[in-house]
Amino acid sequence: MTKIDSVDLYYLSMPTVENVADGSQDVLLVRVRAGGWEGWGECEASPLVSIASLIAPMSHSACQPVLGSVLGQTIDSIDDVRRITALVRANSFDQLQAAHTLSGINIALCDLLGRRYEVPVHELLGVRAASPKTPYASTLFGATPDETRAEATRLAGMGFRAVKFGWMGFGESSLSADVDQLAAAREGLGPDVDLLVDAGMAWVGRPDQARARIPALHDFRVRFIEEPFVAEEFDAYGEFGTAARQVGVAVAGGEGCHNVPLALTMMTHAGLDYVQIDAGRIGGITEAKDVADAALSQGRTFLNHTFTSHLALSASLQPFAGHGAEGLCEYPVNPRPVSYDLTTTHIPVDGDGLVRIPDAPGLGVTPNRRTIATYLQQVEISVQKRILYRTPDLDVVSPADEEIAA
Amino acid sequence: MTKIDSVDLYYLSMPTVENVADGSQDVLLVRVRAGGWEGWGECEASPLVSIASLIAPMSHSACQPVLGSVLGQTIDSIDDVRRITALVRANSFDQLQAAHTLSGINIALCDLLGRRYEVPVHELLGVRAASPKTPYASTLFGATPDETRAEATRLAGMGFRAVKFGWMGFGESSLSADVDQLAAAREGLGPDVDLLVDAGMAWVGRPDQARARIPALHDFRVRFIEEPFVAEEFDAYGEFGTAARQVGVAVAGGEGCHNVPLALTMMTHAGLDYVQIDAGRIGGITEAKDVADAALSQGRTFLNHTFTSHLALSASLQPFAGHGAEGLCEYPVNPRPVSYDLTTTHIPVDGDGLVRIPDAPGLGVTPNRRTIATYLQQVEISVQKRILYRTPDLDVVSPADEEIAA
Repeated sequence: MTKIDSVDLYYLSMPTVENVADGSQDVLLVRVRAGGWEGWGECEASPLVSIASLIAPMSHSACQPVLGSVLGQTIDSIDDVRRITALVRANSFDQLQAAHTLSGINIALCDLLGRRYEVPVHELLGVRAASPKTPYASTLFGATPDETRAEATRLAGMGFRAVKFGWMGFGESSLSADVDQLAAAREGLGPDVDLLVDAGMAWVGRPDQARARIPALHDFRVRFIEEPFVAEEFDAYGEFGTAARQVGVAVAGGEGCHNVPLALTMMTHAGLDYVQIDAGRIGGITEAKDVADAALSQGRTFLNHTFTSHLALSASLQPFAGHGAEGLCEYPVNPRPVSYDLTTTHIPVDGDGLVRIPDAPGLGVTPNRRTIATYLQQVEISVQKRILYRTPDLDVVSPADEEIAA
Repeated sequence: MTKIDSVDLYYLSMPTVENVADGSQDVLLVRVRAGGWEGWGECEASPLVSIASLIAPMSHSACQPVLGSVLGQTIDSIDDVRRITALVRANSFDQLQAAHTLSGINIALCDLLGRRYEVPVHELLGVRAASPKTPYASTLFGATPDETRAEATRLAGMGFRAVKFGWMGFGESSLSADVDQLAAAREGLGPDVDLLVDAGMAWVGRPDQARARIPALHDFRVRFIEEPFVAEEFDAYGEFGTAARQVGVAVAGGEGCHNVPLALTMMTHAGLDYVQIDAGRIGGITEAKDVADAALSQGRTFLNHTFTSHLALSASLQPFAGHGAEGLCEYPVNPRPVSYDLTTTHIPVDGDGLVRIPDAPGLGVTPNRRTIATYLQQVEISVQKRILYRTPDLDVVSPADEEIAA
């Protein structure tokens, strides 16, 4: 019986964070230690808010600090990860941020078990052999169609079989501006590379604007259109999806889901073709796995949502490691240094254009101590002058630390 | 053009917070000032987490601190409240906690406008004359059926026409234990008082356990059963509701909703008879009003969710002030001193057993400075030694402060 000894959060940030839709500008890294073992995770979260949610004093029995449901718990098997996850859900139900905080902890616990038992995380989930994935390069539209065309040409030249563009005002201005961006993307990609589009919730409450884009999406052979609305607008999703599918354009969504019931309900009631789940938001790897299994059984395509580090990438690939060979996966191509350099190694696009989930213990990637030291933000939170959180020292050496330092 | 000058959060707490399902043990109070005017709101939130969400450094364009979308904004009409609310939603979309933080700010902005124009908040929402409501006393089951019976007797004796019991293990142990609690509640209330039951999500993932209680709910004439599952389990709600309604038991839910799309989708897809919205969670009074209007137009009964202060009670009553006379409202009967004493005056149950929304400017209740001083928790949050939040001084005097002090 191994008990969880510590849960430490590290907030890393670029020196300057720009007001753009690039989520790779900061990182909330989680380190969990238990009986000499160590695991790392990452929350796709506002770092300071999730640090507060870890240690916020209890408000009532269903609004407790996340840490209280994790520290001291037994961690010997993947069932323990599921049990701890359920405990956090119950004890922190009314603490809205808890789901994002839990996500990184769940990932770190899975990593810890994988390192301990010297197996990849997906093997802990019952998948013996991971299938290779077809990565789609995930990037933002350029500021102009010319920039978009150049980026499309570059990514196609790198061998990507699929590329997704999004944000940067797409969907929010005129139809003709959107057509220009789509035309530039398709031109740069050439005829054979799949084009995917992320609408970035541009049409919240404006389903007519979404429908007006369907002919253009068809003309430029967009394989799927992602997140036309906020996750909960199921009826808008349903009506739009019915129209889009008639011309061969699929609908993707799900990244905003912060719990399994919402994802399962959205899948069926919103009618998703592609179910995109971020393990760093939904509650972690085991939670994402539940959605992946359900999607597969319903004939929907599950894939990861990842725009940040290769630690987050590995975490979000594990839940559908066993799904059919060469299925799509999201692959970040332009992360900022704080995210790209977070790990000492990366998950490459191989010569055959495919991505392979690391066949190594845990997540198969390890945080880079130098990167952590470079971008670390010292946080201190006190209530009534009592310090509830102070960024923990990285240099308290554990066996795993020494391995990392080597 | 009046600009918002300040948004201050005050975390109040009982000296000891017990590990029970009583959400009245702490308070997150919001004070907004604009051009010499002042308004107060309350978040139904984990206080420290929402304080962090107010000031957390930007992660990217859709994960910004809540404060940035509020400070300096124009506030001259209820449309400004809606505009600011939409801005927070867009700029803080990926900051999960933002919805709870926004809620208290939206409430405070409504209060500020009501005080400025010397009209009740519901008049700002277009409701000239508020209808009286039939309060249901909202309390927890006793630890034993005897305690439940005594509490039921007491509340019926106070003149309540409806009483709701919940939590304390109801639904989680045996059917016979639940039957004993229901029998005791019905016995204590007598035959003429409505009995309502809050299942407190006891049957998450166990719809069979929920269905097994339906005959007992019918036998003891439970008017509605609340929150049998988590909000997003729409299919479980739907199947349970169909069976429950066949024997005259209605289904209530919605308190967990933290945005309007989720509430609207839940109403229809989960099939709610009673839609219970907490203005302190869903995004504020204007957001709750949108749900209230939709519920009314669909023939569903909207009501408030309130278990805390009379400031929260007034805020949650405003959105359905104009709905039919003598409809139900939730009325907290056992709040802790930090919640009960939060306001200098209260919203009484009148001699005829009805509750009337204050016909006074704003929310019609004013925070008690002595209570704030008694329970105030000093919070300090720093990143890289730069203090991002320190509990603001209450004694910076504004004209409104002087009125409060008088």
